[in-house]
Amino acid sequence: MPHRPSTSSGRPEQDAEGRTPETPEHPEPKHLTGRPIRYYRPRGSADIRHLIDEGFQAFNAARLGEACRIFADKMLLPEHDTTIGLTVAGALTPAGLGGCMVELMERGLVDFIISTGANLYHDLHYALNFTLHRGSPFVDDVELHEDGVIRIYDVLFPASVLLETDAYIRDFLVRSRLNGPVSTAELHYALGRDLMSRQPGCEVHSVVAAAAANGVPIYTSSPGDSSIGMNIAYHELMNDSRLMIDPNKDVNEVCAFILAGRKNGCVILGGGSPKNFYLQGQPTLWEVYGIPKGGNDYFIQFTTDQVVWGGLSGATPSEAVSWGKVNPGVLPDTVVAYADSTIAFPLFCEYVVGSPHGRRPRKELVHKRDELVAVLKRDAKQVQR
Amino acid sequence: MPHRPSTSSGRPEQDAEGRTPETPEHPEPKHLTGRPIRYYRPRGSADIRHLIDEGFQAFNAARLGEACRIFADKMLLPEHDTTIGLTVAGALTPAGLGGCMVELMERGLVDFIISTGANLYHDLHYALNFTLHRGSPFVDDVELHEDGVIRIYDVLFPASVLLETDAYIRDFLVRSRLNGPVSTAELHYALGRDLMSRQPGCEVHSVVAAAAANGVPIYTSSPGDSSIGMNIAYHELMNDSRLMIDPNKDVNEVCAFILAGRKNGCVILGGGSPKNFYLQGQPTLWEVYGIPKGGNDYFIQFTTDQVVWGGLSGATPSEAVSWGKVNPGVLPDTVVAYADSTIAFPLFCEYVVGSPHGRRPRKELVHKRDELVAVLKRDAKQVQR
Amino acid sequence: MPHRPSTSSGRPEQDAEGRTPETPEHPEPKHLTGRPIRYYRPRGSADIRHLIDEGFQAFNAARLGEACRIFADKMLLPEHDTTIGLTVAGALTPAGLGGCMVELMERGLVDFIISTGANLYHDLHYALNFTLHRGSPFVDDVELHEDGVIRIYDVLFPASVLLETDAYIRDFLVRSRLNGPVSTAELHYALGRDLMSRQPGCEVHSVVAAAAANGVPIYTSSPGDSSIGMNIAYHELMNDSRLMIDPNKDVNEVCAFILAGRKNGCVILGGGSPKNFYLQGQPTLWEVYGIPKGGNDYFIQFTTDQVVWGGLSGATPSEAVSWGKVNPGVLPDTVVAYADSTIAFPLFCEYVVGSPHGRRPRKELVHKRDELVAVLKRDAKQVQR
Amino acid sequence: MPHRPSTSSGRPEQDAEGRTPETPEHPEPKHLTGRPIRYYRPRGSADIRHLIDEGFQAFNAARLGEACRIFADKMLLPEHDTTIGLTVAGALTPAGLGGCMVELMERGLVDFIISTGANLYHDLHYALNFTLHRGSPFVDDVELHEDGVIRIYDVLFPASVLLETDAYIRDFLVRSRLNGPVSTAELHYALGRDLMSRQPGCEVHSVVAAAAANGVPIYTSSPGDSSIGMNIAYHELMNDSRLMIDPNKDVNEVCAFILAGRKNGCVILGGGSPKNFYLQGQPTLWEVYGIPKGGNDYFIQFTTDQVVWGGLSGATPSEAVSWGKVNPGVLPDTVVAYADSTIAFPLFCEYVVGSPHGRRPRKELVHKRDELVAVLKRDAKQVQR
Repeated sequence: MPHRPSTSSGRPEQDAEGRTPETPEHPEPKHLTGRPIRYYRPRGSADIRHLIDEGFQAFNAARLGEACRIFADKMLLPEHDTTIGLTVAGALTPAGLGGCMVELMERGLVDFIISTGANLYHDLHYALNFTLHRGSPFVDDVELHEDGVIRIYDVLFPASVLLETDAYIRDFLVRSRLNGPVSTAELHYALGRDLMSRQPGCEVHSVVAAAAANGVPIYTSSPGDSSIGMNIAYHELMNDSRLMIDPNKDVNEVCAFILAGRKNGCVILGGGSPKNFYLQGQPTLWEVYGIPKGGNDYFIQFTTDQVVWGGLSGATPSEAVSWGKVNPGVLPDTVVAYADSTIAFPLFCEYVVGSPHGRRPRKELVHKRDELVAVLKRDAKQVQR
Repeated sequence: MPHRPSTSSGRPEQDAEGRTPETPEHPEPKHLTGRPIRYYRPRGSADIRHLIDEGFQAFNAARLGEACRIFADKMLLPEHDTTIGLTVAGALTPAGLGGCMVELMERGLVDFIISTGANLYHDLHYALNFTLHRGSPFVDDVELHEDGVIRIYDVLFPASVLLETDAYIRDFLVRSRLNGPVSTAELHYALGRDLMSRQPGCEVHSVVAAAAANGVPIYTSSPGDSSIGMNIAYHELMNDSRLMIDPNKDVNEVCAFILAGRKNGCVILGGGSPKNFYLQGQPTLWEVYGIPKGGNDYFIQFTTDQVVWGGLSGATPSEAVSWGKVNPGVLPDTVVAYADSTIAFPLFCEYVVGSPHGRRPRKELVHKRDELVAVLKRDAKQVQR
Repeated sequence: MPHRPSTSSGRPEQDAEGRTPETPEHPEPKHLTGRPIRYYRPRGSADIRHLIDEGFQAFNAARLGEACRIFADKMLLPEHDTTIGLTVAGALTPAGLGGCMVELMERGLVDFIISTGANLYHDLHYALNFTLHRGSPFVDDVELHEDGVIRIYDVLFPASVLLETDAYIRDFLVRSRLNGPVSTAELHYALGRDLMSRQPGCEVHSVVAAAAANGVPIYTSSPGDSSIGMNIAYHELMNDSRLMIDPNKDVNEVCAFILAGRKNGCVILGGGSPKNFYLQGQPTLWEVYGIPKGGNDYFIQFTTDQVVWGGLSGATPSEAVSWGKVNPGVLPDTVVAYADSTIAFPLFCEYVVGSPHGRRPRKELVHKRDELVAVLKRDAKQVQR
Repeated sequence: MPHRPSTSSGRPEQDAEGRTPETPEHPEPKHLTGRPIRYYRPRGSADIRHLIDEGFQAFNAARLGEACRIFADKMLLPEHDTTIGLTVAGALTPAGLGGCMVELMERGLVDFIISTGANLYHDLHYALNFTLHRGSPFVDDVELHEDGVIRIYDVLFPASVLLETDAYIRDFLVRSRLNGPVSTAELHYALGRDLMSRQPGCEVHSVVAAAAANGVPIYTSSPGDSSIGMNIAYHELMNDSRLMIDPNKDVNEVCAFILAGRKNGCVILGGGSPKNFYLQGQPTLWEVYGIPKGGNDYFIQFTTDQVVWGGLSGATPSEAVSWGKVNPGVLPDTVVAYADSTIAFPLFCEYVVGSPHGRRPRKELVHKRDELVAVLKRDAKQVQR
């Protein structure tokens, strides 16, 4: 069992930059000597744009270049007004890629997000000024377990970070007075507001807070499948709360966004259930609601999964055509670049941020959820008649 | 848009074997000429056991052999009374592997299941006697789209199968009178009972029906992320139903099973959110509820994902030790075999079914959910004092 | 440095089965306690054929089934008289798969082989009655290094096996009186004959010896790239030998086989330079010699590499069409099954050995090399005129 | 059959930049409309160095960062005087990455190269001013075959490029008067000199020419396994030449370089037989020659292959320790970054070129081969006594 730190250790104070390295009562375990992981913010480097356009000419380098140009030159064209979904799977916030997500949200380049719960949970560590450390994947896990150190591949941090983040979540749940079925977007919005009020300024280094600040709804496809969900379950069992995630709301809200989109496009990091959740939007419209909206107009994925292994993560835009998930006419505007998101996504963001349309008005969909679901309901009723 | 078949086409009648090939009004599209996919049932072949023990000596063949022996010789030992969870990701029921799952359930070799929604949804096609066909991944998807044929890699079937399965689900939802928050286990149990009543005998060729018949609870980690979830969302929006999946119940029920297990072990097919959902059970106990249960005793995974890509699907048992998901002392009883489940799982099932303890009393956990959650609550309250 | 065993330790004596576990002077290091690896011989199991035909219905399981049926039902049809090349990359003989290769050669089902040098070198350990052990990939390599244990993933054996195998090779080179440029087929044939004379009966448990016994020429695409090549280089430098591998002979002999084939087909295990070497046969004919032979008629590959990574191992039959390596009309007779050869190849061999045409007259190409190269030269001269 | 262009079409003239787009007599086939691929030259971008140090914090991004720092901060330290081998597998010159290799050679950052033959053969197209085009992997290969277009994944060019490059090689072979056993380094050096004399200035856009200009020996582990080897085989068969590659020389020359290295380190792109050829250097010393040199000091690999698949490409530095290929004490100075070389290698080169020791005196080993092999022989003789 990891050591359970006394909860009286208190919240660390902030330094001048709004960040505080954790100051434990005991010396850091030897495994936590690597540099702190920070949210890197892309700045639109011209050098990187040059490398991508001129040096990335074939194989996955070329696919990454295509992805950059589809996003920058087509999806961001003002006349297309593309509604852009970002799906996030794989340990991206632990790896410090939350900064890329924050940058895209601030610039209006992403309209809604579907993420694994784990990425949102681990984002809270940054918001709460805990420190995750760069490390190595080649460490002795039994030793880590004894030292109370948690490992996410090569990211290391004390188990107390989990326990204190959990304590924050449980306190937030009580404070929030949420007490009934909510969509995950509503939950995450409340969480982001709470973070901003208690950790002022954290919206520059927290995805959840930045989403709230910029009106970007965040959904989780597997709501029970992270420490946030685990703590809500605790809240129900132990506090007799009636707060629960209603996946129906999530399905209908995302479906409504897609219905409302002039054009629709996505950036898929990894794959997994967030990818599936996003891509089922179009089939929900035609297959379930009978509304002939058509599929995605743009499709960008960074993954290392492969079509031949049979999982949805590796399924191609081409296969999605047969399901009505992708418009049959737009295959040239779809691309899968086979690359680790930790490498590809920062490069992609540098390119996009530095592009001519690298900033656009934010849609702030988090505030339009009810209105757009009402449109979905109206349209579906009309079709039924 | 796929052709929307008239809903008056009716349900096909059954043949002598309880299966009916679909009999459409129009001739089959040219793409649907491959053999029908059937649920293959493993029979415990001695030849296959010999091959695995004597011919699978190194690399992933040896890992597959280890997995077989950990399951057959350790997890199934009567004195261990292991509570066994099976997690299912990747298109296994479309590939005809539902028969392996049914066989394991009937024999009491699996106590609960966590599956992607897609695997359960596509299982309904078998229950309802629709036909999926063997095909090729190298087909023209634009042509398929025009012909109203749906493709899952190399599995092909008419879009009408989707639409009629959806219609069945919506009818079931109305019939079921479910009207409030439920766990996915409760939903799937009701669905399985409904299938058995309307398609008598289908429990021999349907995972959902067999689970109901054998008392095996089935959970879905991402409840909005399949056509079942999409239709529940429809039901809420269009019929003002109050039926919703409550992920809190899923979290607490699975957590309670693990708490109650004398020993705990899992077989993970693929990875994805079902893997994560299963593995978070132990951390929920210590991290959230403060109950020092300890981690898994046995861990078997078949996957083609890799640890180096950073997703949870590829995370190793070793990394899970640092999280308290796997007991530090049991690494010898954990194994990951890197292989496509469509090849590895039938081989594994043949071995296990033919092993000395290849049948054991069923735990029928679906009927013990409330009782075990009450124990969880009691234990957690005690710890708090 | 691994311990260098005294060379006086002598050759171990044979037991009744013609195999001898090594009997070192000192007790076995603790790492060498796993079962000895034996060459498993496929027996044509009907159960396995049933599983493949009925249970392997989609995804890579289906591809493996296709591979079995293309080989058994098409390539082996007597009227096609297909010239069949087998290419071997990855540690197959260390994993005990040499028995599958021996079985195919004895039955006339493989006409020539292109292998990495490593597979042939490690085959010599079996021929010389040294023992490789089943083990684990999770061991401490620094400890192994200190204990003088060599690791090939999860295959473990004492460093003395390397040193004594090398000593055998160097003695053979002296004994052989080979002293000039030879093809690798000629070298391996001489080596196989030498093994049979010094280890009588070893052709039932050695690929190199069985190839000599059955007239199957074995080529190595990278002749300096194994301990056999390293010892030939030693022989030249230290003994002033003039023995050398002449890659020109290898290129022309393989090219001549393909020219002579009524139909040509291949089974590619892994990929790598052996795959490339085989597949360049057809382009050599048209691109270099100007002989319009056309490409392969049948193409079977087992690999886990992927087309998207850009290496030749992952290149598809389809891409090979543009190069004239594969006949454009035969794509239906090509298949890539994405699976570890240690699992897929024994299954494939069981199927093939048990098939109606599971034995055919051997072509014994090793004795026809000069004759067929002369035909190649004649045809090329005719084209030039 | 691809169209065989008339050989009278002549060599295209050069433009001002020393490059000439091919000017065929007939209009370009529709597939060849993509931008020409050029050899991108890294320039040491500070932005890219910043991204790698600050933004690449975990997972493979962090491994790529480690690789950059091991190379720039350790291998290039003047006091270490590391002998650096670069191994090249995968289609890097077709993808335009030859420019990175040229830059490293000019700056003295690579001392010798082991490459697949294919990379060298396709480099000749650049030297001879033929044009390869950016394209798509999703094209109809039967159509390409009919149009005489060759495809390397997404790189497209007319079949005439192959035929004219082959014609150049055959003319060179006659001109060169090489007529006996040579090492591949000697062959490639002669080829590079010939290119420089016939295409003056081509050493800025040809790996083979640049290697000759900078004294960098290039080896090929599988000498018969490319169009260069195929044409040498033709030369022997049709012209009765006695020119042949002697792999013994290659083995001994590389072995001698490693013996002479103060420290030894490698950069491995991909894996395959070039990786194996490099890494066998140390075992050749201790296992075959009995010289206790010890293993590599530094080891950097970019690959997408995985250790679990069992091929040498995916074998880790750790496993190499048990073979004496890597020094047991230096595992911290070894790194494998799992990434497509087309993305990772240009980033790595930008970092390295911009580093403080980004230029060092060239070793010009191509001229020291005989001298160093003599030292190897002398040392080996001494050990024998």
